[in-house]
Parts: sequence; structure tokens; C-alpha cells
Amino acid sequence: MAVRVILVGQGLVATHFAVGIERIKRGELEPYGVPLAKYQLVYDIKDIELVGSYDVDEEKVGKTVYEVAKKAVGDILPVPETLKSITVRRGIHLGSLRGLPFKAKGLEDELGSVRAAIEALVEEWKKLQPDVVMIVATTEPAKPFHKVEDLVKAVERDDRDRLSASHAYAYAAYLYAKDTGRSVALVNVIPSPLARDDAIVKLYEEAKSIVLGDDGATGATPLTADLLEHLAERNRYVHSIAQFNIGGNTDFLALTIPERNKMKEETKSSIVKDILGYDAPHFIKPTGYLEPLGDKKFVSMHIWWKTFNGLEDELVVNMRINDSPALAGLLVDLARIGKTLTERGIYGTAYEVNAFYMKDPGPRGSKNMSRIRAYYALIDYLKKTGIIRA
Amino acid sequence: MAVRVILVGQGLVATHFAVGIERIKRGELEPYGVPLAKYQLVYDIKDIELVGSYDVDEEKVGKTVYEVAKKAVGDILPVPETLKSITVRRGIHLGSLRGLPFKAKGLEDELGSVRAAIEALVEEWKKLQPDVVMIVATTEPAKPFHKVEDLVKAVERDDRDRLSASHAYAYAAYLYAKDTGRSVALVNVIPSPLARDDAIVKLYEEAKSIVLGDDGATGATPLTADLLEHLAERNRYVHSIAQFNIGGNTDFLALTIPERNKMKEETKSSIVKDILGYDAPHFIKPTGYLEPLGDKKFVSMHIWWKTFNGLEDELVVNMRINDSPALAGLLVDLARIGKTLTERGIYGTAYEVNAFYMKDPGPRGSKNMSRIRAYYALIDYLKKTGIIRA
Amino acid sequence: MAVRVILVGQGLVATHFAVGIERIKRGELEPYGVPLAKYQLVYDIKDIELVGSYDVDEEKVGKTVYEVAKKAVGDILPVPETLKSITVRRGIHLGSLRGLPFKAKGLEDELGSVRAAIEALVEEWKKLQPDVVMIVATTEPAKPFHKVEDLVKAVERDDRDRLSASHAYAYAAYLYAKDTGRSVALVNVIPSPLARDDAIVKLYEEAKSIVLGDDGATGATPLTADLLEHLAERNRYVHSIAQFNIGGNTDFLALTIPERNKMKEETKSSIVKDILGYDAPHFIKPTGYLEPLGDKKFVSMHIWWKTFNGLEDELVVNMRINDSPALAGLLVDLARIGKTLTERGIYGTAYEVNAFYMKDPGPRGSKNMSRIRAYYALIDYLKKTGIIRA
Amino acid sequence: MAVRVILVGQGLVATHFAVGIERIKRGELEPYGVPLAKYQLVYDIKDIELVGSYDVDEEKVGKTVYEVAKKAVGDILPVPETLKSITVRRGIHLGSLRGLPFKAKGLEDELGSVRAAIEALVEEWKKLQPDVVMIVATTEPAKPFHKVEDLVKAVERDDRDRLSASHAYAYAAYLYAKDTGRSVALVNVIPSPLARDDAIVKLYEEAKSIVLGDDGATGATPLTADLLEHLAERNRYVHSIAQFNIGGNTDFLALTIPERNKMKEETKSSIVKDILGYDAPHFIKPTGYLEPLGDKKFVSMHIWWKTFNGLEDELVVNMRINDSPALAGLLVDLARIGKTLTERGIYGTAYEVNAFYMKDPGPRGSKNMSRIRAYYALIDYLKKTGIIRA
Repeated sequence: MAVRVILVGQGLVATHFAVGIERIKRGELEPYGVPLAKYQLVYDIKDIELVGSYDVDEEKVGKTVYEVAKKAVGDILPVPETLKSITVRRGIHLGSLRGLPFKAKGLEDELGSVRAAIEALVEEWKKLQPDVVMIVATTEPAKPFHKVEDLVKAVERDDRDRLSASHAYAYAAYLYAKDTGRSVALVNVIPSPLARDDAIVKLYEEAKSIVLGDDGATGATPLTADLLEHLAERNRYVHSIAQFNIGGNTDFLALTIPERNKMKEETKSSIVKDILGYDAPHFIKPTGYLEPLGDKKFVSMHIWWKTFNGLEDELVVNMRINDSPALAGLLVDLARIGKTLTERGIYGTAYEVNAFYMKDPGPRGSKNMSRIRAYYALIDYLKKTGIIRA
Repeated sequence: MAVRVILVGQGLVATHFAVGIERIKRGELEPYGVPLAKYQLVYDIKDIELVGSYDVDEEKVGKTVYEVAKKAVGDILPVPETLKSITVRRGIHLGSLRGLPFKAKGLEDELGSVRAAIEALVEEWKKLQPDVVMIVATTEPAKPFHKVEDLVKAVERDDRDRLSASHAYAYAAYLYAKDTGRSVALVNVIPSPLARDDAIVKLYEEAKSIVLGDDGATGATPLTADLLEHLAERNRYVHSIAQFNIGGNTDFLALTIPERNKMKEETKSSIVKDILGYDAPHFIKPTGYLEPLGDKKFVSMHIWWKTFNGLEDELVVNMRINDSPALAGLLVDLARIGKTLTERGIYGTAYEVNAFYMKDPGPRGSKNMSRIRAYYALIDYLKKTGIIRA
Repeated sequence: MAVRVILVGQGLVATHFAVGIERIKRGELEPYGVPLAKYQLVYDIKDIELVGSYDVDEEKVGKTVYEVAKKAVGDILPVPETLKSITVRRGIHLGSLRGLPFKAKGLEDELGSVRAAIEALVEEWKKLQPDVVMIVATTEPAKPFHKVEDLVKAVERDDRDRLSASHAYAYAAYLYAKDTGRSVALVNVIPSPLARDDAIVKLYEEAKSIVLGDDGATGATPLTADLLEHLAERNRYVHSIAQFNIGGNTDFLALTIPERNKMKEETKSSIVKDILGYDAPHFIKPTGYLEPLGDKKFVSMHIWWKTFNGLEDELVVNMRINDSPALAGLLVDLARIGKTLTERGIYGTAYEVNAFYMKDPGPRGSKNMSRIRAYYALIDYLKKTGIIRA
Repeated sequence: MAVRVILVGQGLVATHFAVGIERIKRGELEPYGVPLAKYQLVYDIKDIELVGSYDVDEEKVGKTVYEVAKKAVGDILPVPETLKSITVRRGIHLGSLRGLPFKAKGLEDELGSVRAAIEALVEEWKKLQPDVVMIVATTEPAKPFHKVEDLVKAVERDDRDRLSASHAYAYAAYLYAKDTGRSVALVNVIPSPLARDDAIVKLYEEAKSIVLGDDGATGATPLTADLLEHLAERNRYVHSIAQFNIGGNTDFLALTIPERNKMKEETKSSIVKDILGYDAPHFIKPTGYLEPLGDKKFVSMHIWWKTFNGLEDELVVNMRINDSPALAGLLVDLARIGKTLTERGIYGTAYEVNAFYMKDPGPRGSKNMSRIRAYYALIDYLKKTGIIRA
């Protein structure tokens, strides 16, 4: 049985996901970077099937995922020909690429209203029959609604300032689930608050569906979480934390725009107090864009603390990390877990899953914990729910 | 009620422990670096009382702990006058400082045999009435006996090549416990295999006592353990691990002597396979001695791995760590836990405690786990046994 | 004979300078961090005499330099009592602390116009008889005039938007020199363009005086210059350069204000093209403010390049640097060189001196070179002009 | 006109040199990593012609350089087919691979004596007519002779313990030059003392030839030299220097053998006193072998110092460096310079050239200087001698 997946945002993360899945199916790639690869889940990696892809970049809409991948990663990876069968469709824009050097046009521009765009998506999805919709678009400004009626009203009024593309997709997936009676798992790995939006969680419960999110935890943030846990367990008093990130992919470019950077800073900073128990002074944010670094970002972190007898210790961490594959690896688990959760009758959202995979785990008000703790809690949870097989 | 402590080896660790304890008692120091300071244990930090100190360095024997501390850390820390009441006594040498630039003489040299020296210690301890004996001497070559009779024979035959000073002290503490009926907790934070020596564990069980060890886990090794756990949980394939350590304290000087270095390399390397599940190629050892660094060592670590889609990521960690205070902070817990364990009827050794505090946890054959896992297992254990109060 | 010095801006740099000079005079401090300490100059370090100090911070004006120093560095350094003889006077503000959390008031506010403030300074200086005026204030926005008449007009019109405090001081020093016939050396170690302002250079030539500047080269920038020179000499092709700086002193706080940051970014970035010969993509700027770091900033730098056969190498540099003492050490040379230059009849500015000590060396249009080259050119120049004695 | 080159030791350095030269000739590679590529020398890079190659590894002798290169770097570089025309010949062993996991046999084993082996080489070279012989073999233990007669005697007596393979090749090249009247340039980029051996220098003078050496300066050592110069110029007082190197190529494997490591440690450490003026405590040596790192070594360096006012600063450098290409890039210059020097009548050795390209520059007793100073001295020298064309 297949896990049918739709990708929203055919950028580098989606591309690595699509390419990696196909390469694993062909037996040419070990599933490194997929956290649960060593466990037997209800669905195998090979059960994942890409059935649709959406974007608003005119350079991508109408091209096949093969063509997009060839251009994006063709110099460093073999791109399987099977990706020729999926064509990137036009999705919802709502200004999500505003200010970035792309020519973008959304369905809502073509069809005249967000509502019309959402309805068009729902119709398409009734044919594509996705089990999972994954939001892997560029970071965009977005605020939670919390009240279902406010979200509904924003759609009705075509309020393009209030409504983020993420919310529009989430709403479309909800309508699709409700109309068809098929459960859907929405996986949101960008900072938009969806799993932390009471309105979204409520709608998904109602439609026997689930939203997992928000903001996939890869790179420096989960490592920082584990380092802080390490210090906290030894009762070392942290003086300050500085964490710099610089890269050359679209997300770093987007984060040079202050309101988008703000979205990221919030999800990144919440770990400090949650784990240490006090709000140690910190500077943690995407710091800059440097094109030649490409998708392999440079991270530098400085932490210092008071140890026994009041003396001071110091730690510096430097990393070169491939940003998009790290996130794509998580998607391989999330797609499989998402579908199984709904089959197990778990609706709304699932904190135990979010706590490991997400920087800012839903539902609203949830605490961050160190990733190592979250990992073992996750394994327990997945065994208990039968998602990991005995 | 007091926790009466004897220190074996009045070096930097013992000195930081002695100074720190007194400063905490006087209310001038927060207990940072003491892992369980935030929990209420059966014994408070202020219950710890230093009742004896041993060394073989002619520069120290006969001096007060105050004088030794003044010379060692007087330039960076206030040294409490209360330490004037403890005088460093002559202990067992057995070549444990051989090859190092110290003039050393052991009790066994004065009294003619190891057996006589051990008996002299037992007599002294009957007066000092320690609850806890802590081995914080310089790293020395030592091999386990595993059979009680072999250990006993080595003492009988005065076999100074086979017997390490650590074993002689462990045996003395056992005899003291057996003779007096007072339980003793032996805390071994150097690499000598005591908690991993079946013979020692058996003797301690018999004497309603406990041995905790071996090799206190501070600095780079527990951090490496947690970093490897972090990678393992994401199924990243580790290509190799390089870890360098350089410092200027006596332990680094001792480790320039190959057979001592060997002792350390073993306890440090065991984490790789235990945590990753495969023996990733690694170079992990104390690398050199550089006098001006003093007790604040420099650590550099390089780890790289295969991530999703076969791409490669890289991590570099650099640290400046005060070696001795980090270990002294652990001793503050271990003294209190050690005494309470025997009061709770737990004898022999306690893996749950060793797994967090020690690089190579006893009993023999025990596995290393990441420190973060070990920490939560420890907290559960201490709650269950009532050592952490509800 | 003395080198009589006035400090403009009694912040950390000025304080380290004042304290360090007095400690060297008392024989309690080796002159480490003073580049030319090993050479015999016309004036010895002990010839330097602090005769005046200016600030606009209400917390400082009216206090002695001793009091200011005690508060700023009293916990880490002994503060000589001789500094009680110098009281901080009110200087020109012109908004140079605007936006920062200090209560500030300038002479121009008290006296009604910038012109009146300048005249008041000139009168004071006629009594204090400085040989050297050092601008060590917080980074402020400032633009060059290039035409003397424009500068004069800005003063006449009391144009407080156009005129920076740096320019006002520079003009005051010029008037003082012209009126008294005493040559003055203006040393500008902040980014304001003074040595790069044709107008200032021209006025100083006319008044047989000299301006040295701009923006003292300490910390990461001169090191980056030497690293780039190292790469350029091996014809390695630099892909990109990322350099992060974070600290907790007033200058880092000031640099969180975009227009001030801009001032710094320009002087820092100019090295790339000047040394490599091509404008390698770079991100080089003060990155953030983190109060606990204090004056000891954290710097992280990433450089990677193409080596022979098209393979790629990578370099990461991390530093903890005391920002203010590094600059104070340069001032010890600059004061002595500045006075001697005018005595040797060298007026206007001196590129050979600026090229080593400054991030953006005047006069206008001058190139940066690696510091190591600049150092040897400086030594030659100082020998030729007799400032270094044979 | 061609620069005819013989390579001694067909390892990674020789292979990168051979492959790189051919790729540059074919116009598919920019000459990055070749220091003087931007200058017009008497000989162009395209004038370099590989005419012979020697090794003692049974896996290489008899194979073409193409086959060797294909195996060594075929996975990361295109290997030009032109390298099929050169076959690796059997060279002199003299135990230079002893203790390493290679099956090796030398000409002296085949022919019965070192003398016979040397004579055989001379005969071959009379046909190959090299202008340049490059020693790029694995680091081997070697001691200088300083007296010509001692070297001659060692050959006569077949004293295989006293004589290194490097010396045997150097002597062979001398005999070839003397017999044919053709000048030869011997380029020695391994630690064996040849340019620092008075005997070798004297013989080369006599034969109107030149020896350049010793130990090519790439990687961490020249960078350390420039960093120390940077600190010295600011009169910062260096407390200590730690430098670790780890890699997975044959040279790192060889350096796990103590007597070979010793060879390297000496050439690496000499920079400290030469540049700083005092022998700051340091730990600078190849630290370990870690196979997966391959030719791209990991370097970590820690330097700390006293700055103005007695405060302390700290610098950490981490690098990933392709070891062999860096050295191969230098050979591209050295081959061309070597030949031209003899044509300009410069015999024996040339300090100005060695000072930039070598870790331990000959002749005996020469000082190290920072690389940046050495670079400008080199450029002046090459212009003065007409090797760089106006």
C-alpha cells in the first residue's frame, strides 16, 4: 500500500525528497539521514509515492520535477527519470515569494480569489488522492488564527494580507479531507504556525486528519538543544549563547528580509528557556546570505558557562551542513508516520511526533525539550501506537 | 548527619573539591557544576565533611590541605582557612608517580611491605571513620584481578608490579568496612579498573559496601557521547571521529607516558561502538602536554558523516575546559549518593550511577550510553531508591 | 619631553589607554600589545601624559578618569590613583550617542551652537596645550566634506545633521593649531572619514599638523587581511568569506543601529578586493550585541577556496579578543608617532602610518594592503624619517 | 623549450602534479594553487614535461602513471590519457617504506649494491635528460653528511643504515650532471636534509647545479608562520601554541612511526623561535592517522597571548586541506624556477627561493621567516635575476 504525497513548494527540500525517495526505491542509496530507517514501520520507505507538486515560480510551473531537479542538483546527484512523470502545478502565492528575485504568479491571481484557488486545489486533490500534503515552501510571514471563524472569514473576504499561503493550503487540505472522507496528514516544516494554530488543529480533528509541525528541526537548532541539555544536566550556568548561520539557498535569501527572519528567530530561540530553565542571553538567528555557500550552510556557535568553583568554560561549534537533505530525510519519516497516525485514529496533532521533528512543536503552548529526550519519547510513542512494529 | 570523606591524591581535583565544598558551606559559592544541586538529596552538600587526605608527593605530605590549595589555586580562588585542620598524610605509592617529576615516597617504602601499609591505613581509618573514600590520584597503569584470591595473593607476596595503588586503597577500604562493620563507598574517578574488577565488586558486596567507577566522565568524552547519540538518532553515517586533548596539569603530563595514555585511550574509545552501533574509525586520546595551558585544557574534535542523498556534513567542536573543577563537581554528588546507596542496602556497584558519572562504567562488561539517556535513567533510579527526595 | 594627549570619548578604549600608560610608567606592566614597544622611538612610552578627557555621557562628565576607570575595569585591573587628577569635561555631542541608552548632553546644547562649542574647546585647549587629540568615541554616522568651504559653512550654519562630532573636534583641533602655532596630531580610530576627507587633510597641512586615520585596525579585520594575503600569494581562488563579530561593549550596542553598522561594514569590506584583486563574495560585519560577552568579543570566520587541480580547501577561525585593549595598544604608538611626524615637518596625513594602524587608511582613495606588508613598509618609513632611532 | 622533469616517488603529490600539468596544458584547468601563475616566468607552465617516474612499491613499478593516477584520484579527477606514455620505473628503496604496509623492492636489491643502483639511474637519466629531479617520496629518516667524503664513503661501503634514499637520489643527480655537463635542479619537498646538507650543496655547486629544499611548506606550517608574524608585529606575548594534524594519506601513516614523525616535528617547530624571537611553548606535530580523511587532512590550532594591559586573547584555527595538491602546486613553480636558476648561473642552493617554498629552508643554519615576508623577498629576487620577466 502506498503513501501518496503532495509537495507544496518544489524547492531544494522537495527536490532532495523526490530524488532521494526514487534512488532508495532503485536500491542505489542507503537511507542515511532518515531517523527511523532502522526500525520497521507500518509503511516502508519504498511505499512513498509522489503524486503531485506545487509551486508559484514561473521558472518551475509546468516543468517536470525531473527538469527542476536536474537544474537544482543535477551537478551533484543522479536524477532518476521516473520524476519525469510529475509536473509542477501552479499553487497559491499570497505574496509568499514577495521581495525575492523570482517571477511568481499564484492560482488566486489567475482565478480571481483565494477561495477560487482553494476550490481548484480541492478538485485537483480529489483526483490525486493524497494521503499526505507537505508544506516545504520558502519561509513566509504568517500569524495564527486560533478561531476557526476568523480563518473562514479571511478566506471569504479574500483578505490576502491576513492569510498566508500556508494557511490557504492547510484549509484546502482540510476541505479535501472533509469532502472525500479520506483522512489527510498535513506536514508543515516551515515556521508558519499551523500545528500551533488552534483553528487548524480543530478543523483537522473534525476531518479525522492530522497536522504535524511547525518548522522542521534540522541543522543547528536541534544540536543546540542537545548541547544545552548536556550543560543543564551538569548544572553549569550558561552566560550566553551566540549562534550564527549563513548560507546561499533561497531560504537564506528570504531570511535577509526582516519580517521573514523574525519568523525564524522565534522558533529558534524558544529552546533556550525551555531547556535551561532560565532565559540565558542569546543571539540565535539566520545571519546572512552568501551565494557561493549554496545549500551547505556554515554555522558557528559560542557558548560559555560557569563551572564548579565559579570558573569559566567555553565551547565553540562550527559546522558545514547540507540544509535541504537534512530536512528531506525527516520528511521520509513524517510522511509515513502522518498517514499511520490517522489510520490509528489519532487526529488533530501529535506532540510526541512534533517534539522530535519540529523546532516549534504544536499544539500551541507546547514546550521544547532536548532532542535526545524527545527521540526516546517518540520511539516509545510509536511503539505504543503500533507505528513501529514490534 | 555528615558524609565523612577521605581523599586519595591531593591534586587539583581533590583541591577543587575541598575548596569548593568549604566555599559552598560558607555561602559564598553557588553549586554550579554539581549535576544534582537542584534536587533535594538525602544528604545536603553542606553535610559533606573532609576528614582525611593522602598523597605520596614529598612536597605535599605533612602540609595542610590549606597550604596545598593556596599553592595550587591561591592565585585564582579564595582558599578557606577551615582547610588548615586537615593535614595530608602519607599514602601508598606503588610507583604511581614513577616517571613524573615529583619526589615520591609511599607508606610501603617506610613500613617495608604493601601489607603493612594497608594495615596502617586501616588503623588510621578506624579513627577517621570515613563514609566515602575517593580515589582522585594521577592516572596509573592498573589491571583488574577478577579473582579475589589473586588480589589477596598479590598483597601477600608484596607483588608491587602486579598491584596498583588504586587496588591497594580499594582493598584497604574493604578491610576497614569489614573490620568495623561500617559500610564504605569507594568512588574511583581515575581509569584504574575497580568497579570493573569482579574481585573488588565481590569484596564490597561482602562488606556491605559499594564501589562507584571507573574514570569520571567530564570534558570531551561525555560531550562526544551525546554528539554521537545525536547523529545516531538521525541515522547519519559517521565516517570518522578525531578528538584531540591537550593540557598542562599533572594528568596530561602523566599521559605523555605511553602506558598511562593507553589506560585513558581505552576508556575514551569505548563510547563509539556502544553508541553508534558500529566502530566508526576514530582517533580519541589525550594528545599532548603543554604547560602554560595549566588545568584549562584545549579540546578539538572533528566528526563528519553521510546525510540524506549521500551528501556529506561536517562538525568541528573546540573547547577550553577547566579539567579539575568539572570532576570535583561530580564528586559532590558521588559522595552523597555513595553513602546513601549503602544505607539503602545497595552493595557491590550501581550501574545506573556509573553510567552517568563514569567514562567506563562498572560492573565489567557494561555498555556506555549517551549521557543524556544516562541522566534520565539516573534520575529515575535515584527517585525510586529514595535518594532524591520526592 | 612629554607627549601631551587629549582623549575624546572616555569609553573603554580611552580607559584602557589611560590605565595602561600609568601602569607602564609605574613599572608594573610590560608593554605587550604596543606594536613598536621593542623599538626605540624619539618619544618613550613614559613620555606620554594625559592632559584632558572629553565625553557627553552625563554619567561620566564631571567624574575623574579614575572614577570612570574604577567602574569600567576596576574588577579586572588595578586603577592607578594618578588618574584622579584628570576630570572628564563636557564635549560635543551632535547626536553621536543618539539611540543608545545613555543620557547625553553636548557643549553645543549648553552654549547654543556648535560654533560656540568649538570655540570653547579651542580656549580650553590653549590652556591644556595638547600635542595629540585622539578620537576614541563610539562609532557615529559621518560623511566627508572634501571641500573646506562646505565644512566651514556647516559650522557657520549650525548644521547639526550634516556635521558629525568627529568633524567638529577635528575642526577645533585645527583652529587650536592655527591660533597657537603649535602643531597638533589628530588620531582618529573610529570609522568617521577624517584622514579620508580632503577638507580635513588640507586644513591640517595648512596648520602644520597631521591627521592619522581612519578606524583603528584591531581584531578580525587585520587578521583577515593577512589571511587573504596568504591565500593570494598561493594563487588560491577564494569562493567566499563569512566573518561574524559579536560583543557586549558600547560599540557593539551602537552597531545594532543600522546606519552605524553601515559605517563599519564599509571599512571592513574594503580589504577583500584590495588584497585579492577580485571582489570575492563576502559577508563581513559586526553581527550582534550580546551583553555578557562584554569587551571580549567572539569572532568567527569561514573562508574556502579552490586549490591546485580544482579541489577545495576550507578554513575556520574563531577568536575571543579583548576589543578595547587591542586598540589602546595601538594608541600608545600613534600618540608618539603623531607628535614626531609634525616635528619632522610631515603634515596633512601619512599613508605609511595609516596603512598599518587603520582599517581604512587615508588619504582618500588609498588602498588597503595586508598588515604584514604594511608593517615592514611602516618600519622602513619610521627609520627613514628618524622616528625609530637607529 | 621544455622543462624536463623526473619524479621520485609516484605517490599522491607526484600524481596531482602529473595530472594537473596535463590538464593545464589541455586548457581544462586554471592554475589555482600555483603561487606564481600570475607572473610571466621564463618558462611557462605548459613547458613542463614529465619524462620519468620512480617508485619502489611493487603495486606501482611497471604501471603507467595513467594507471597509478586512475587508481589514486580517478574518482575525483579526470586523468589525461597522455600519462599513459610514462611508465613508473624501479627506484632506490633503502628502507624508505620500511614498516609501512607496502611490498617494496629497490634497485639496490636487484643489482646488489647502492652504488650499482646509483649508476643504473645515471645511465637511465643520460637518456631521459632531465632538467629537474623532484623528490616527492614518503617521509623517511635521514641525517645530513656535511662532508662530501662521508657521503662518498657511505656509498662505497654500501652503508644502507647511514644512507637515505633521498641522499642516494641526490648523489645520482649530481653524478648525472657532472658526467653530462647538463645542469640539474634537485627539488626536495620532503624533510630529508639535502639543501641543509653542506655536502650536497657543495657537490651541486661543483656540478653547476642547484638543490632546492627542504620539506615543501604547505598546509598548517606556513599559515602558522604568518599568524605568528601577525602577533609578533603587535608585540603580543604568545603563551603557547598547539597544532594538531590528522589525515589518511601515506604520509600520515608513515608519521605514526616515531622516527619519521621526529623528522617532521623538527621542520615544523623551527618557525616559533625564528619568528617570535622567543621559544614560546608549543606542541606542533602530525598527530595521527585516520584513514577515512584520506588526503584532506584536518588541522586544529590553538594560540593565546597577552595583549595590552595584561589581558588575554585566544585564537583557534580549524582547516580541511587537500595535502597533496597544495604541494603539487608549489612544484609547478619550483620546476620552472629550478631550471632557470641554473641557466642564470646560480648554483648550490638559493635561500630566497627556499625561504618561501620550504618548511626548513637551506642552506644549513638559515632562519625561517613569515611566508608573507618571504613572498615579497622572493618576488624581488626573481625579478632581479630575470626569472620573472619585466
